[in-house]
Amino acid sequence: MGEEKQDVLLRDYYVGVDLGGTKMLAALIAEDGSIIAKEEIPTLAKQGAEAVLDRLGSLIESVLAAAPGGRGVVRGIGVATAGTLDTAKGVVTLASNLGWRDVAVASVLSDRFACAVRLENDATAAAVGEWLAGEGEGSPDCIFVTISTGIGGGIISGGRLIAGVNHNAGELGHISIDGNGMLCPCGNVGCLELYASGTAIGRRGAEHVRRAAESAGSGGALTRLAGGDPNRVDARLVAAAAAEGDAEASGILREAGRALGVGLVSILHLLNPQVVILGGGASHIGEPLLGPMREVIAERCLPSIREQVRFVSSALGSSAGAVGAALLMVRDQK
Amino acid sequence: MGEEKQDVLLRDYYVGVDLGGTKMLAALIAEDGSIIAKEEIPTLAKQGAEAVLDRLGSLIESVLAAAPGGRGVVRGIGVATAGTLDTAKGVVTLASNLGWRDVAVASVLSDRFACAVRLENDATAAAVGEWLAGEGEGSPDCIFVTISTGIGGGIISGGRLIAGVNHNAGELGHISIDGNGMLCPCGNVGCLELYASGTAIGRRGAEHVRRAAESAGSGGALTRLAGGDPNRVDARLVAAAAAEGDAEASGILREAGRALGVGLVSILHLLNPQVVILGGGASHIGEPLLGPMREVIAERCLPSIREQVRFVSSALGSSAGAVGAALLMVRDQK
Repeated sequence: MGEEKQDVLLRDYYVGVDLGGTKMLAALIAEDGSIIAKEEIPTLAKQGAEAVLDRLGSLIESVLAAAPGGRGVVRGIGVATAGTLDTAKGVVTLASNLGWRDVAVASVLSDRFACAVRLENDATAAAVGEWLAGEGEGSPDCIFVTISTGIGGGIISGGRLIAGVNHNAGELGHISIDGNGMLCPCGNVGCLELYASGTAIGRRGAEHVRRAAESAGSGGALTRLAGGDPNRVDARLVAAAAAEGDAEASGILREAGRALGVGLVSILHLLNPQVVILGGGASHIGEPLLGPMREVIAERCLPSIREQVRFVSSALGSSAGAVGAALLMVRDQK
Repeated sequence: MGEEKQDVLLRDYYVGVDLGGTKMLAALIAEDGSIIAKEEIPTLAKQGAEAVLDRLGSLIESVLAAAPGGRGVVRGIGVATAGTLDTAKGVVTLASNLGWRDVAVASVLSDRFACAVRLENDATAAAVGEWLAGEGEGSPDCIFVTISTGIGGGIISGGRLIAGVNHNAGELGHISIDGNGMLCPCGNVGCLELYASGTAIGRRGAEHVRRAAESAGSGGALTRLAGGDPNRVDARLVAAAAAEGDAEASGILREAGRALGVGLVSILHLLNPQVVILGGGASHIGEPLLGPMREVIAERCLPSIREQVRFVSSALGSSAGAVGAALLMVRDQK
């Protein structure tokens, strides 16, 4: 029986790809979402779409070499990527991080590997990966929030990914937490990501260093760590300064965390999830950011909803998108 | 064949009930959601739960008399009501509008009518009614918003009602549109319903009349319609004053409508629906409220989401909850 099971598994490998503006990652994934092998290389987007897809093909071949039985056992390739996608046609219609317009990713890869290829928004794919193979543990009501350059994520409710009528649901970073607040490049006002993303934390840190320079004050640890240069400040530096006891840096993280809490309370009130998974680079700041977030949720969320929800950290990290893209492929083929 | 079809329909009637704090409505409903007969009587909640349920039973018997074939053809009773429900047990655990605590509505009615009985939150039931038998036209991605004393509603996504882990999803009135705004009795800050409900419109109108009285100014149409008494001002009076050209009243409706727009943009960005159905008493104010709402959506909503969504008015009005409760019963039995 053990051998028989092994034999079945051999036929059910998938490849998941996370195609980003700076790096691309390919992983060989079992049907249960576990990672057999993975590799990551720089995207080198400036070389143009053809060269990038050619190198992506080589990357996929490299992880396929880890598949017992060779390439023939791979049933499909799922590709997670940013930008506007035509998922039905498998085309990246517009991706500013790659400089791409109307690139037929799916047909290039399906020609080369003779298998089905599926594109998915990267945050959505990461949500599915965390839901099914990470900390979501398959809970039917699960929200994934990625706090990074921007804020994105995905919504799973009633055991299904919430896609929306044209596949644009889950813009968690573009809910308004202040209808009279800052104007977002997306066109909305007071978007969550303007207050709580890594970029927002870095921007506020840079403002502080700039003010300190202008007032010729000492500016504390953050100014010292930045060497007095506002342009060197990012969320990581703000977190490092806060860890050294810089009150201003701690205050910036606290405000960002509270903003995150305000946005999450709205999301919780709409969707009543069981699990909220927090991922993305800025989520690693941990307590200085997430403590104030939980504080707002404890203060403001309806008890009947608050008492049912657990907050967990992403388990898959930078592999979540590739794992999720592969698992969406698995679901498609069932 | 005509007779045969008639015969099938005879076996598939349901009763829908909307049990409110002031009125209760019962309707005999066909499997497709059409209303065969309906009746409404005052709840008289002060008589206590036993008397109310007894009179509700008589009301149901009265609409059952309209069923071809008599009571035997009714397959189930769906009850829409406010408050905290234990839907699995069919118990109203707490309903402040009825003064009820732990009232076993389902068992009382199923004993009397010898059929299945199902409780549902009234806004959720109304959402299902509008979705399947009203203006939602069965669209798989549909939001129902009721603008009344408060703001409530329901979310349908991917062809399914979004319930959440413990059936508390869809608190549309308690998303925050201003994280530094007014404190809501629910515990959250800046809740949409504090700015855009009928109660909010009435409160702002009353404040205006009070200020006009204090300053001994004329106060315009609103003050005249209220006879100078702030306590007589409600949303209906503000709308009437706006219709007479009262600039202050128009401004109040405009601000409420814009607040509604801010909240809806967040909801649209999260859920990417195809249809938004607007119901509830205050929605009948129409353009002076809904024009500014649409204005904000046009200004702020992501085009890829905005271009896919239609706004429609509730078709079922005060029957939506009863129709939806009955249709949820239909779905349960399939």
